Amino acid sequence: MIITLLTDFGLCDNFAGVIKGVILGINAKADIVDISHSVKPGDIFQGAFLLESSYKYFPAGTIHLVIVDPGVGSKRHAIIAKTGRYYFVGPDNGVLSLALKAEGKAADIVSITNQEFFLKPVSSTFHGRDIFAPAAAYLSRGISITEFGTLQKSYKSLKFNRPRIISLPAGKGKKILQGRIVYIDRFGNLITDIREELFRKFVGKGKFRIYFKNKVIDRVSKSYADAKKDKPLAIFGSFANLEISVSRGSARDYFRAKEGLGVRVAAE
Amino acid sequence: MIITLLTDFGLCDNFAGVIKGVILGINAKADIVDISHSVKPGDIFQGAFLLESSYKYFPAGTIHLVIVDPGVGSKRHAIIAKTGRYYFVGPDNGVLSLALKAEGKAADIVSITNQEFFLKPVSSTFHGRDIFAPAAAYLSRGISITEFGTLQKSYKSLKFNRPRIISLPAGKGKKILQGRIVYIDRFGNLITDIREELFRKFVGKGKFRIYFKNKVIDRVSKSYADAKKDKPLAIFGSFANLEISVSRGSARDYFRAKEGLGVRVAAE
Amino acid sequence: MIITLLTDFGLCDNFAGVIKGVILGINAKADIVDISHSVKPGDIFQGAFLLESSYKYFPAGTIHLVIVDPGVGSKRHAIIAKTGRYYFVGPDNGVLSLALKAEGKAADIVSITNQEFFLKPVSSTFHGRDIFAPAAAYLSRGISITEFGTLQKSYKSLKFNRPRIISLPAGKGKKILQGRIVYIDRFGNLITDIREELFRKFVGKGKFRIYFKNKVIDRVSKSYADAKKDKPLAIFGSFANLEISVSRGSARDYFRAKEGLGVRVAAE
Repeated sequence: MIITLLTDFGLCDNFAGVIKGVILGINAKADIVDISHSVKPGDIFQGAFLLESSYKYFPAGTIHLVIVDPGVGSKRHAIIAKTGRYYFVGPDNGVLSLALKAEGKAADIVSITNQEFFLKPVSSTFHGRDIFAPAAAYLSRGISITEFGTLQKSYKSLKFNRPRIISLPAGKGKKILQGRIVYIDRFGNLITDIREELFRKFVGKGKFRIYFKNKVIDRVSKSYADAKKDKPLAIFGSFANLEISVSRGSARDYFRAKEGLGVRVAAE
Repeated sequence: MIITLLTDFGLCDNFAGVIKGVILGINAKADIVDISHSVKPGDIFQGAFLLESSYKYFPAGTIHLVIVDPGVGSKRHAIIAKTGRYYFVGPDNGVLSLALKAEGKAADIVSITNQEFFLKPVSSTFHGRDIFAPAAAYLSRGISITEFGTLQKSYKSLKFNRPRIISLPAGKGKKILQGRIVYIDRFGNLITDIREELFRKFVGKGKFRIYFKNKVIDRVSKSYADAKKDKPLAIFGSFANLEISVSRGSARDYFRAKEGLGVRVAAE
Repeated sequence: MIITLLTDFGLCDNFAGVIKGVILGINAKADIVDISHSVKPGDIFQGAFLLESSYKYFPAGTIHLVIVDPGVGSKRHAIIAKTGRYYFVGPDNGVLSLALKAEGKAADIVSITNQEFFLKPVSSTFHGRDIFAPAAAYLSRGISITEFGTLQKSYKSLKFNRPRIISLPAGKGKKILQGRIVYIDRFGNLITDIREELFRKFVGKGKFRIYFKNKVIDRVSKSYADAKKDKPLAIFGSFANLEISVSRGSARDYFRAKEGLGVRVAAE
C-alpha cells in the first residue's frame, strides 16, 4: 500500500525520516513516496495546491499523508478523509480541501481521536509523528476509518480569491478575466490560477491578449521551445493552468515575479 | 530489513544515489530510508545529534548507516556497533556515540577490516560507497558482525560542553543552569542542549526565568500556537529539549540566532 | 526491478513525486531510487556527467530514467537504449550519451512512439510524466523494447571540449595536458575532466606540476586528510577524475572557483 508524504518539513532536519520510521514500525510493507517536503513553512494554500495537482497520479487506494500544520497543538482536528479512490490524512485546516473538492462527491471524514492509534507520549509539537503518521500506517494495514474516531460532517475549506470576470468601466461592456500567480516552479515558470477550461470558455474562438506586468502575449504556445529564445510565452503547463514562461529561461527572473501578482486576459 | 541513511552528502551530487545502488546490488530486498543527507559537511556533532534524536523511531533490527566522515582515508576505524535493538555502521569518529550512549548497555563494536566485504577497488575518498554501504548491506543479509572484523573494546566519544549548573558570584548561593543552542530547525526553532528532565529537576516546582539574548521568558508553552503571534516562547519540542521559538514565526530570524549561543535558566 | 531517477526537477515542486506515482500505477513492485533531482535546469552535460559516474553502481537490469529535457515538446526523440547490462530511458539530446559510450559495445536504441504506452492526454510540457515514466515502468514489467517503437541507428552525442595535449610554443617540445573543471561537489571539491588513466599516461613515472589559478601542486594526495589543513591538494576522487581539493575545507571557496576554469598539467 502506498503512503505519500507532502509536508513543510524540509529535507535538512530529520522530521521526514522519523515519520518514515514510525510508519515502517507499524507497517513494514508500506511503500512510502515523497511528493515534496518543501512546502513553505506553514503555507497551507501551497500545500493544498501541490496536493491537488499531484494526488490523482497515484494508483487508487493510495493514502496521501499531508502535514502542513501551523496550528499543531491547538484545537484544529486531525482528520482522515476517504473518497471513492483515495485516503487523505492531515490537519483539518484546509490543506486537504482542494483535493477533496476535485475528487467530487462528498468524502467520509473522521476526526482522529482514538488514542489507541497514537504514538505515545503524544507531543504537542509534532503530531505528524505521533498522530498523523500512525493513522496513515494503520490505515495501510486495513483498519477501517471509523475505528479512528467519529464521523464529522464537513471539513475546513480554504478561503482565497479565485479568478473572476470583471467589466471594464470605460469598456462598453468589455470584460476581462482577472487571475494571479499562485505558484512558481523550479524552472521559473509562473503558474496562474486560471485553468484551461476557464480560459477557453472566456476567450471562445476569437483573439485574446494576456497582460502580465509590462508585456502582452497574444497566443498560447504548444511547448516551451515554441517561442523565440529568452522571450516570454503563455502555455498550459503540466498543472493544467495558464503559465507565463520564458523560452529556455526563467520567467521569474525575467519579470522579477513573485506569487500573488495579477494576470489579466482580454478577449476581443 | 531497513537501512537508514544519515550523511553529509547533500542532495545535489550523486553520492546518496550511488550508495543506494551499491546496497541494492548486495541485497535487493533492503528497504532504504533517508533520515537526512543535509548534515553540514564534516559536522560530526550535528550528525551525532540527529542520529540520537532519530534512531529510536525505527523498528528493532534497523541498520543505521551514518556517514559523516571528514577523516576518510586516514587511520580512523570503520565500525559496526550492535546494541540490543539496532545496528549502527559508520566511522569511529564520535558520530555514533550519542546514540550508543542513549542505548544504554555496552554495545558490541567491530572494526570493519575483512576486505571480502569491500567494494573494490577501495577508493581513499569514498568509504561510504566502498566500505560502509557494503557492510550495511551484508549485515541486512544476516551476516554476523564478527565476520566483518575483530571486536574492539570501545568507541570514540565526542567531547563537547554539556549544560552545567553554576553559582553566581554575587548571588548568595543562587545558581543558574547554563546551556546553549545546539541545533536550529527549518522552522527557525532554536533547540538547546537542556533536556526536559534536567530542566524539571533544576527548577523544581517553583518559578523560573529563561534568559536568551535580551529576552526573558518565564513560562513553558504547551504548543507553538500557545503564545501571542510573533512573540518568543519556550517549549519542549519534538527533540525533547528546551526550545526557544516564536509563535507563527522564526526564532532564528527574530533573534538573529545561531548555533552555540548561550541560554540561561534561573530558578527562584 | 530498480528504476533510478536522474532529473533536473529539483525537490521543491511535485514533479519527482508525480513521476513516482505514475510508475507505481503501472508497476506497483518497481523499486524507485533517486540518483539526483538537482541537475541544473536544462544542463544536459551535467546530467550526462552524473549519469556516467553513477549508473554502473547499480545492479545489472536496472532501468535508468534520465529527464533533463529542455527541448520537451520539440522534435527531439524520446528513446530507450539497451546495453548488455542496463536500460536507459530519456530524451535523445545527449544526456544518455556519456553512459552509453562508457558501456562500450553498441546499444540497441528504440524511439518511443507507440502511444499505447503513453499516459494520456500527453502534455507538451511534461513528457517525463506522460512518456518517459510510463516507458520505464512498462520496461520494468518485462515489455520488450521493440514494443515501444522502431529501432534507430544512433543516438545524439554531446559536443564538448575534451582534455588535450598541447605543445608550448617556447617549450622546446615541452607539452602540457590542458583540462578543465567540469563539476563541483557539495564539499567544494573541483572535479576536472582529466581521468586517472590519462593523467598517468601523460606524466609517466617522473615529476609533474599541476597548475590551477595561482597555485602549483606537485603531488597527488592519497586522501583529503593527507595534506595540511586548509591547504590545496590534488587527488583522484570518487569520480576517478583528477580533483583539486582543500584539506578540511572547500576548494570552491578557497579558489573562488567555478565550472569551466582551466587546469594544466606539466610533466618534467
